[in-house]
Amino acid sequence: MTPEEFRSAGHQLIDWIADYYDRIDDLPVRSRFEPGDLTAQLPSEPPASTDSFDAVLGDLDRLILPGLTLWQSPNWYAYFPANVTFASILGELAESGLGVNGFSWVTSPAATELETLMMNWMVQLLGLPPHFVDHGVIQDSASTATLCAILAARERATAAGIPATDLVAYATAQAHSSVQKGLRVAGIGETQLRVVPHDEAFRLRPTELAAMIDDDLAAGRHPFFVCAAVGSTSTESFDPVPAIAEITDGSDVWLHVDAAMCGIAALCPELRWVNDGVERADSYVTNAHKWMGVNFDCSLFWVRDRAALTDALSIQPAYLRSAAAASGAIDYRDWQIPLGRRFRALKLWFVLRLHGVDAIADMIRGHLSMAAELDSWVRADDRFDLVAPTTMNLVTIALVDDASTRALIDAVNQSGLAEVTPTIVDGRTAMRICVGSRLTQRHHVESTWHMIGRLAQAILPG
Amino acid sequence: MTPEEFRSAGHQLIDWIADYYDRIDDLPVRSRFEPGDLTAQLPSEPPASTDSFDAVLGDLDRLILPGLTLWQSPNWYAYFPANVTFASILGELAESGLGVNGFSWVTSPAATELETLMMNWMVQLLGLPPHFVDHGVIQDSASTATLCAILAARERATAAGIPATDLVAYATAQAHSSVQKGLRVAGIGETQLRVVPHDEAFRLRPTELAAMIDDDLAAGRHPFFVCAAVGSTSTESFDPVPAIAEITDGSDVWLHVDAAMCGIAALCPELRWVNDGVERADSYVTNAHKWMGVNFDCSLFWVRDRAALTDALSIQPAYLRSAAAASGAIDYRDWQIPLGRRFRALKLWFVLRLHGVDAIADMIRGHLSMAAELDSWVRADDRFDLVAPTTMNLVTIALVDDASTRALIDAVNQSGLAEVTPTIVDGRTAMRICVGSRLTQRHHVESTWHMIGRLAQAILPG
Repeated sequence: MTPEEFRSAGHQLIDWIADYYDRIDDLPVRSRFEPGDLTAQLPSEPPASTDSFDAVLGDLDRLILPGLTLWQSPNWYAYFPANVTFASILGELAESGLGVNGFSWVTSPAATELETLMMNWMVQLLGLPPHFVDHGVIQDSASTATLCAILAARERATAAGIPATDLVAYATAQAHSSVQKGLRVAGIGETQLRVVPHDEAFRLRPTELAAMIDDDLAAGRHPFFVCAAVGSTSTESFDPVPAIAEITDGSDVWLHVDAAMCGIAALCPELRWVNDGVERADSYVTNAHKWMGVNFDCSLFWVRDRAALTDALSIQPAYLRSAAAASGAIDYRDWQIPLGRRFRALKLWFVLRLHGVDAIADMIRGHLSMAAELDSWVRADDRFDLVAPTTMNLVTIALVDDASTRALIDAVNQSGLAEVTPTIVDGRTAMRICVGSRLTQRHHVESTWHMIGRLAQAILPG
Repeated sequence: MTPEEFRSAGHQLIDWIADYYDRIDDLPVRSRFEPGDLTAQLPSEPPASTDSFDAVLGDLDRLILPGLTLWQSPNWYAYFPANVTFASILGELAESGLGVNGFSWVTSPAATELETLMMNWMVQLLGLPPHFVDHGVIQDSASTATLCAILAARERATAAGIPATDLVAYATAQAHSSVQKGLRVAGIGETQLRVVPHDEAFRLRPTELAAMIDDDLAAGRHPFFVCAAVGSTSTESFDPVPAIAEITDGSDVWLHVDAAMCGIAALCPELRWVNDGVERADSYVTNAHKWMGVNFDCSLFWVRDRAALTDALSIQPAYLRSAAAASGAIDYRDWQIPLGRRFRALKLWFVLRLHGVDAIADMIRGHLSMAAELDSWVRADDRFDLVAPTTMNLVTIALVDDASTRALIDAVNQSGLAEVTPTIVDGRTAMRICVGSRLTQRHHVESTWHMIGRLAQAILPG
């Protein structure tokens, strides 16, 4: 492919992407593919010669697109949003084109310094504590950030001579599965996770946490890690971070705040309460790739104590040493699990400059308003129960019995007109409706609600 | 940013990238920035209003570019290559534009199926064993793939009742630092790594490995993991995988082959020997993002036993369950550490169709030929020692004493005309010259060699 062919193909692809967003409202949200459908349409052998860009773009449109479930659809209410903006797509394009690897300061100084600066801008924009300045790093995902927090906490404990087998971690049943996975990866094991009871709003009960920690200490075990959820996955419940910090302050327990979904809402000054207490946490993560229009992967992770993180993750063979690092420049490879790293700060910079934080804040406010209205419609309809309080942009509902709720979820998703996610909340099957696509407008939510009502009518007995 | 503004900005950025590759030959390879230079030029406060795309593109060109060390330069000989192609940049652009998250089959069937198919195409193209079909996954980096191999091996051992504290791993001092890091992350610890002696060509000595394993078994410890390097980082040495497999076959020891750099050379049929013995390995990784023109991150990882990997990494909360998964569809989230995942298979597909495997194979052959010629120049110049045999595209050299070699490396890198990496090989400081940029031609290597000679002359005593 010559530079001229690249220019031409690149312009075509940019236009194809713009067209995709023009038509996405009319495309089915969920792919209608059955397992094997794409595989059957593509050659099992690699190509013997090259293809034209037109052929590849044609296949992208004709074969791949129908096999995708459209996370960018205005009718996307599943999992959590992963909304993207045009500015972010351009930022990733610049990153791809430059093709640098910023694992150390010296391997591309601007990649490291722009990342530090963007993380510092985000400290200001989210109202995070000043001790997070120069203490942030972009991770691929909140799961990985939580693992890094566990590793830093484990390092702190084992450096003090505690055997890893004595370590105990705490979270509610509402915490993200990455807490379990992180403990497993770190070799501590899920058996060392204590499930702290939650209240009627699915929030961790601090008195129960304190009692469990006391019991473990009395039994000679070593409480080392608590994960507080700021917007849990099943219900967007908010663990009481200040009350948890009352327990962990001055103790050996590392307090990690997983605000993957909801922390970013602090871009709206009136919503900064979402991060209450974070100034007393040891680490904090929120995802720019969920609700800020920045392409996955862009998970924003801060630690109070940089040394705890880098002590856990730094390895320095001769081929990775540099004079700059010896003089104190940040080498982000020591803040993460892989060695190589993309120049992810570029997309954050593009979004903040081109799309603008005001537009993001307005989008978030719009989602909250739509979710609140949906919540009111659910309350007014006696066929539906609200299974959890609507705290932000997630409405969690159920019909009278689990079988009906499951049937309703399947019917919604099979319609292709909206995509939702099932969950189980304290034993009850529920439907999660998360309003978070950049393109979602009030009329989308209203049509979806009407459709849900019609489908429920057909499912409910008599 | 409106769709029309996106089209216009996107076309501009595509052209800027094409222009970048037109002028890259003349740009200094190493950034001349001192720590803090970028930070000083950018506002410490986030912007209060949005900027024009022209302003951002201007800053990218004027402020960011001089702060980058140019991994795509034809004069890039540092670390390992991370070469990219226009086809890959387009593949990543398509991925960014679509904005889907394929962590489960059901969250975008085509993302999962294209990945499986691409990994199967690569099995054919690299001549890998047929039992790797449907057993491959794209990871972000070889470091992470090696960690996943360690976790799978740990799972297999601990599921059989072995305490993790009894596990012992083996590799030479030439193995990548990710082996140490992976053992640390997994909670096994670097203290459990036995450094196996190497021969004069920096290859693991199988008889020593066998003896160390026997000793550990006799002492009641549990050998569980060997990492064999296929193109080690310091010297591109090749551990004798078939001889190692003679030792691990039928044992409880997981054999992981880290072919991050050199495995991909098997795209040239005459070079398939690089993967000799891999059919007897438990896992294998090679990086498409090093020497295949696919943008980072695209690390190709296969395991013989899928269940060992997914047993180590699968967590199934209610909100992640699906009927498709229950019926056997692949959910790649269970093959990796994070939950979310990009649609990385697209860039591999674009490269194989648009750039073509023949062009990649020819590029690799060209690099080998240039490295061989450089090797001959070094041998003919009695000022220089070859510190290790040139096995593929890496030439590792030294002057008479470490201080001179270090001074030479600094002088080369400060020239901005070429970038190389220092290493220490069995105690001796050496300069690594790795020929692997897509744009490198014979005249680049020749000029670089002449420059190295001139700089050495100025450094060497009288």
